[in-house]
Amino acid sequence: MFLEMALPLWKNLLQTTKKRILQQRWLSLYNGAHGYEEELVKKKLQQFSGGSVNLSKEDNGIGILTLNNPKLMNAFTGTMIVELQERVTELENWKDGKGLIIHGAGNTFCSGSDLNAVKEMSNSQDGMNMCMFMQNTLTRLMSLLCRLPLISVALVQGKAFGGGAELTTACDFRLMTPGNEIRFVHKHMGLVPGWGGAARLVRIVGSGAALQLLGGAARVDPERALRLGLSEETLPSSDETTALGEARAWLNQYTEGPTTVIRAVKKVVTAGRELPLEAALRTEKDIFGTVWGGPANLQALDRRPKQK
Amino acid sequence: MFLEMALPLWKNLLQTTKKRILQQRWLSLYNGAHGYEEELVKKKLQQFSGGSVNLSKEDNGIGILTLNNPKLMNAFTGTMIVELQERVTELENWKDGKGLIIHGAGNTFCSGSDLNAVKEMSNSQDGMNMCMFMQNTLTRLMSLLCRLPLISVALVQGKAFGGGAELTTACDFRLMTPGNEIRFVHKHMGLVPGWGGAARLVRIVGSGAALQLLGGAARVDPERALRLGLSEETLPSSDETTALGEARAWLNQYTEGPTTVIRAVKKVVTAGRELPLEAALRTEKDIFGTVWGGPANLQALDRRPKQK
Amino acid sequence: MFLEMALPLWKNLLQTTKKRILQQRWLSLYNGAHGYEEELVKKKLQQFSGGSVNLSKEDNGIGILTLNNPKLMNAFTGTMIVELQERVTELENWKDGKGLIIHGAGNTFCSGSDLNAVKEMSNSQDGMNMCMFMQNTLTRLMSLLCRLPLISVALVQGKAFGGGAELTTACDFRLMTPGNEIRFVHKHMGLVPGWGGAARLVRIVGSGAALQLLGGAARVDPERALRLGLSEETLPSSDETTALGEARAWLNQYTEGPTTVIRAVKKVVTAGRELPLEAALRTEKDIFGTVWGGPANLQALDRRPKQK
Repeated sequence: MFLEMALPLWKNLLQTTKKRILQQRWLSLYNGAHGYEEELVKKKLQQFSGGSVNLSKEDNGIGILTLNNPKLMNAFTGTMIVELQERVTELENWKDGKGLIIHGAGNTFCSGSDLNAVKEMSNSQDGMNMCMFMQNTLTRLMSLLCRLPLISVALVQGKAFGGGAELTTACDFRLMTPGNEIRFVHKHMGLVPGWGGAARLVRIVGSGAALQLLGGAARVDPERALRLGLSEETLPSSDETTALGEARAWLNQYTEGPTTVIRAVKKVVTAGRELPLEAALRTEKDIFGTVWGGPANLQALDRRPKQK
Repeated sequence: MFLEMALPLWKNLLQTTKKRILQQRWLSLYNGAHGYEEELVKKKLQQFSGGSVNLSKEDNGIGILTLNNPKLMNAFTGTMIVELQERVTELENWKDGKGLIIHGAGNTFCSGSDLNAVKEMSNSQDGMNMCMFMQNTLTRLMSLLCRLPLISVALVQGKAFGGGAELTTACDFRLMTPGNEIRFVHKHMGLVPGWGGAARLVRIVGSGAALQLLGGAARVDPERALRLGLSEETLPSSDETTALGEARAWLNQYTEGPTTVIRAVKKVVTAGRELPLEAALRTEKDIFGTVWGGPANLQALDRRPKQK
Repeated sequence: MFLEMALPLWKNLLQTTKKRILQQRWLSLYNGAHGYEEELVKKKLQQFSGGSVNLSKEDNGIGILTLNNPKLMNAFTGTMIVELQERVTELENWKDGKGLIIHGAGNTFCSGSDLNAVKEMSNSQDGMNMCMFMQNTLTRLMSLLCRLPLISVALVQGKAFGGGAELTTACDFRLMTPGNEIRFVHKHMGLVPGWGGAARLVRIVGSGAALQLLGGAARVDPERALRLGLSEETLPSSDETTALGEARAWLNQYTEGPTTVIRAVKKVVTAGRELPLEAALRTEKDIFGTVWGGPANLQALDRRPKQK
């Protein structure tokens, strides 16, 4: 029934699929919409400086994104919010990328927003503008609508609080180290998530668990995170450098192989997650068409003996 | 790709978001549609009387809704179906509400429809009319489309059979007491769910488990309900009054705090559950805008020392 | 909000619901779309012959579909792909059907596509054509958009590799026998799924686990499949005939009962899985109307004593 109604739409979608998914241009969720002016928001954010967001691109196709503001538990200042966007642009232009690890400096993850900036922006319009800016960045980081098909991991050492907890939900996987925690503390700040953390959390743990995590604002340790499906694995090591190596090895299980194939894997799964079934099927077929008969496929066929 | 096509729609959605989600008027799923006349259906239902549906609104913002027809295991008579709708209207007008517990009198939950009424309405049109009436009520009770953002619990003591099992799926959580059961007996009555129980059950336990529960019509005890994610917790006590107290304490973990914040939590999670990702993100940002810079948020900021 | 925008659409949907879901005609996902000509694709496929796909329709309403090409581990030749479509047509015309078991001959499941055919079709257009043909068949096998409301099981003995692993996702349930495996080996062939396996896998195990299975191409044994929710149960027996009997008994728990009721169960659950909440509710109500007051329902009511 949906199909009948939706076929004309989907025929159009198929045209856009090729223009969009495969050519991969990004349309901002918000730019130009109802008075949101990204450049003005950026200028406002740049008034609140401190810390940095650093990116290192490794030879194995794994990028390491580091939140670096340890004296505030890596809280996002205004300039860090802007830098995160710039790092995502840089990742979008990295054609050899296959994976991404997001972690924090100083053996902790991220405590959300820098409260000094928050206090200066505590009116509804400034708050929503900051959300829109951050949602744009995080959607570019994780969504089908992006040109960034990297398999991504948030490595949670220390604390992921508030906006930091939200940031972990913008990755495909979360890995925790012993003794640490993710905590959606928003309720205790008189808030709810606004960086997209609620919408994404529901997709990761289900709506019942999401309601408990946001309504209860309770500490989630690695064991509970595993049970909830919020974390994939508890890494053995608590040491900062060692844990990063363990996360890299964990991720490498899923990123080793030809770049085009790994990026196609990320794309078909993201299509499966974000599109209705029929649109997902069509997108899967189109993505399949980009690897079938491609170099990696032909090489693999050559290695196989003829069957009789 | 979806975004490009959907942007004009979503721009409209944003206008309606403000008109609808935030001002919160309700549009019936069915009223006026294809010959459904709610007032006529109500008149028919009122011919089948017996029992009652009672509501008590407690000071802590938790409402207690009691199905009261114990000699028929709290089966819904026609007048009870109408009363349930009236109680939902009353809850919608309760601006201090944060939580809701639905339970049954006489130490059991609910056995579905009163068969005396059912036998008088056993033609397809009457059956569908009754479903449409009940679906309207239950959607007002639990959906994003409502003005009733309460975190809700079905407290299952005794039996939840047929329509009673369906009713439990209209709550965010189910709590069971020892030795009791939820059972989708519809198959044995030559039926399938019609009050929305199938659509909602799939969203709670997944489509595979839903197919087993409806296809097998088997008894689900508290242990199996926990494993399936159909129940959140087995309360220790079987005594009616004690168990209600335990349910109240369980729910209070998630409802304590400022009313505006708790209602906003319920709204962002419901948006995350019911909307496609991009629409959920936009709704989350709008709901965030209702609490950011609000009294609870400003008080929390004042309690925090300035960071340096 | 969605409702307001969607009401006119859904009014139309309701008309089509009756024409489509209940009268059950099938619209191909692809036929006629952007140059896809099913008859031409079929002719091409028929050049690659070998093996067969057999169907036996049992008296209890359970169909047994056998992939039969054991010397190639039941790999799909071109003619088998065409025969699978014909068997699905045959099942659509079987009005007494309630359940379906898909299994492979020679104590294994299916190793995907016959590489001899693959090597002859290793250009992108041929690959996508083959996908579109197979997606059409598998969507008819499992989707709401079909006229085939059978509760279906893939019985995995031996290996389900590549396209064989994808085929298992087109069933409601997967049962495994000891020592066997499901493996999405696509990455090692320089590929991603194209028969819809990614879109459906995400719906079965979630997007995180799907990304691990496709990105890692690892062996999934019965224990891991159970934990992931990819398999429903590990049958005790490894013997081909005995295991088939066990699968039949397992399925029969959910298919015993009146044909109209069991088919309605499959339909409401599929609607719940594939449609947005409001559309699922309306569809559920319509399907309810097909059994309420029907023969099985009236008989069940007659067996019940009048309540007082």
